Amino acid sequence: MIRPLAVAMGDPAGVGPEIIAKAWNARQLHSLAPFFAVGDIRSVQRVWDGPVIRIDDPADAAGHFADALPVLSICDAGEVTPGQPSVAGARCALQTLEIACGLARSGAAGALVTGPVSKAQLYDVGFVHPGQTEFVAENCGVSTENAVMMLAGPTLRVVPMTVHVAFAKVPELISIDLVLTKARVTARGLYRNFGIERPRLAFAGLNPHSGEGGAIGREEIEILQPAIAQLRDEGIDAVGPFAADGMFHARARAGYDAALCLYHDQALVPIKTLHFDEGVNITLGLPIVRTSPDHGTAFNIAGTDQAEPGAMIAAIRMAASAAQHRTDVNTTAGAA
Amino acid sequence: MIRPLAVAMGDPAGVGPEIIAKAWNARQLHSLAPFFAVGDIRSVQRVWDGPVIRIDDPADAAGHFADALPVLSICDAGEVTPGQPSVAGARCALQTLEIACGLARSGAAGALVTGPVSKAQLYDVGFVHPGQTEFVAENCGVSTENAVMMLAGPTLRVVPMTVHVAFAKVPELISIDLVLTKARVTARGLYRNFGIERPRLAFAGLNPHSGEGGAIGREEIEILQPAIAQLRDEGIDAVGPFAADGMFHARARAGYDAALCLYHDQALVPIKTLHFDEGVNITLGLPIVRTSPDHGTAFNIAGTDQAEPGAMIAAIRMAASAAQHRTDVNTTAGAA
Repeated sequence: MIRPLAVAMGDPAGVGPEIIAKAWNARQLHSLAPFFAVGDIRSVQRVWDGPVIRIDDPADAAGHFADALPVLSICDAGEVTPGQPSVAGARCALQTLEIACGLARSGAAGALVTGPVSKAQLYDVGFVHPGQTEFVAENCGVSTENAVMMLAGPTLRVVPMTVHVAFAKVPELISIDLVLTKARVTARGLYRNFGIERPRLAFAGLNPHSGEGGAIGREEIEILQPAIAQLRDEGIDAVGPFAADGMFHARARAGYDAALCLYHDQALVPIKTLHFDEGVNITLGLPIVRTSPDHGTAFNIAGTDQAEPGAMIAAIRMAASAAQHRTDVNTTAGAA
Repeated sequence: MIRPLAVAMGDPAGVGPEIIAKAWNARQLHSLAPFFAVGDIRSVQRVWDGPVIRIDDPADAAGHFADALPVLSICDAGEVTPGQPSVAGARCALQTLEIACGLARSGAAGALVTGPVSKAQLYDVGFVHPGQTEFVAENCGVSTENAVMMLAGPTLRVVPMTVHVAFAKVPELISIDLVLTKARVTARGLYRNFGIERPRLAFAGLNPHSGEGGAIGREEIEILQPAIAQLRDEGIDAVGPFAADGMFHARARAGYDAALCLYHDQALVPIKTLHFDEGVNITLGLPIVRTSPDHGTAFNIAGTDQAEPGAMIAAIRMAASAAQHRTDVNTTAGAA
């Protein structure tokens, strides 16, 4: 049995509080494991009329979960108008993230699920990371290179090996070392979080037609081929590089457990094309389980009851499943 | 009533002859307009047992179409083994392309549909173009910049504004002029070939999140925004630039008639993810209608009766529909 999951509300003026409440409301339909929200309890009460219960200890969450959404109210965002971010709200979002992450690290929570934050707002209150992923990684003592962002949907998992960098910078950032590091963390992460014993990794080429044997770019020959050969020597089931445009139709997807892509849109275009409303961001390489719905604060619809909780529900389910896989691994290891 | 379509067989050792025969076989199911194959008649007879009739004049195609696949046999590829390309076969493919293109230009054929060729083989017989699209454009007296490659499937049309160039070269190739030229040809082509009176064009950004206001790359601000503003001034319904990863899910696709993308995989990843077996390549900006199934020679399965004719059928249907739209436009213009 895993511990209750900590679900950070994210920006109190965004859709985070609403989709957490809606996810709780759908707990039976989706057989959700017990979780509790972390943030300012009023952020939920402002946008939702259902039952909410304040808890002081994560250990109390499971006992209340059947009857009300348990909330660990750890900050005061002041008077928040949904859709209108504020400095007090951003400060609350940052505190929430820190505390929820700490609860997952200490074991008081079974996993960390993070709601959407506004980076522009967070920068105003001293946040210095490119995103929540890097914050959580540092908080866990893991270097950014060794934390891997994976987007996972019902029929596809993708890893962008470079993320929020300009298109023109991508070629200089990709290297054999980068590919090796991301692939090793991905292979291990697929085992620890998804229980896949021998994950199959497929690599996308950088250039059209994967470079056509060097005629249209040489990164496939100089970087990907040697990196993939090295990974295979290490016993990792790595194949490619493949022309990216032929990798994401249904028959192709059946051939691998994760597609390793070289840049943001190479990974995110196919997964959002296929699974726009149900994509989960999971960080691999951390000592804790961390997932997040793959969408933003949606300030434009916050407070209007229009936010769909599908991605949050998927993030909670994936976090619970990953936490369970890790428990199984540890139990098996302990028994051996 | 449009003239019969000329369908070039492509490489005689590839799947071209087989999928043309299978398309003819499915002519009633798909209500295909009359067409005739161009190439070496034995290429078809070698891989297919159905009725074939040799014609000497395209004007005879319609009369025979109900009973047999009409073939204008214009070359001798010699002894061909399916799956094994040869110099004589490549020479035949090139002659076929030239003659079929000429028939479309002269009006003897209602449109040109080109079967898959092997570029590596064509280069051995003196072909100097990057692909069939550029060959056909030059043959029609249209510069490469003014010929636009569009990939079209049942729910998505995309235009890659740069095509077979290395990833690292893309940033230096994109310019306001490139975007203007490709967009104008696309808008006009959507009217002439698809009958869309006021086409809606959506532009993808180059960088992740479309540059996040300049934080992750400036091509959106320096190139796309001014180009889109200029297009709107010209009366073209142009919107964007948008983050590419949010442009291709079903709700987003409903908002435009064509997505204009900056590089090969930005366009081809989404369309092949969604419509792998039914994508049609249509060249806009030509005096003739030219389509092609969006796949290669598939030498590995040629002659084994495994080739699926779906993309060829789609290419024939789109060519007939485009030819009809052009006839309608001319008729209306003539009547006015």
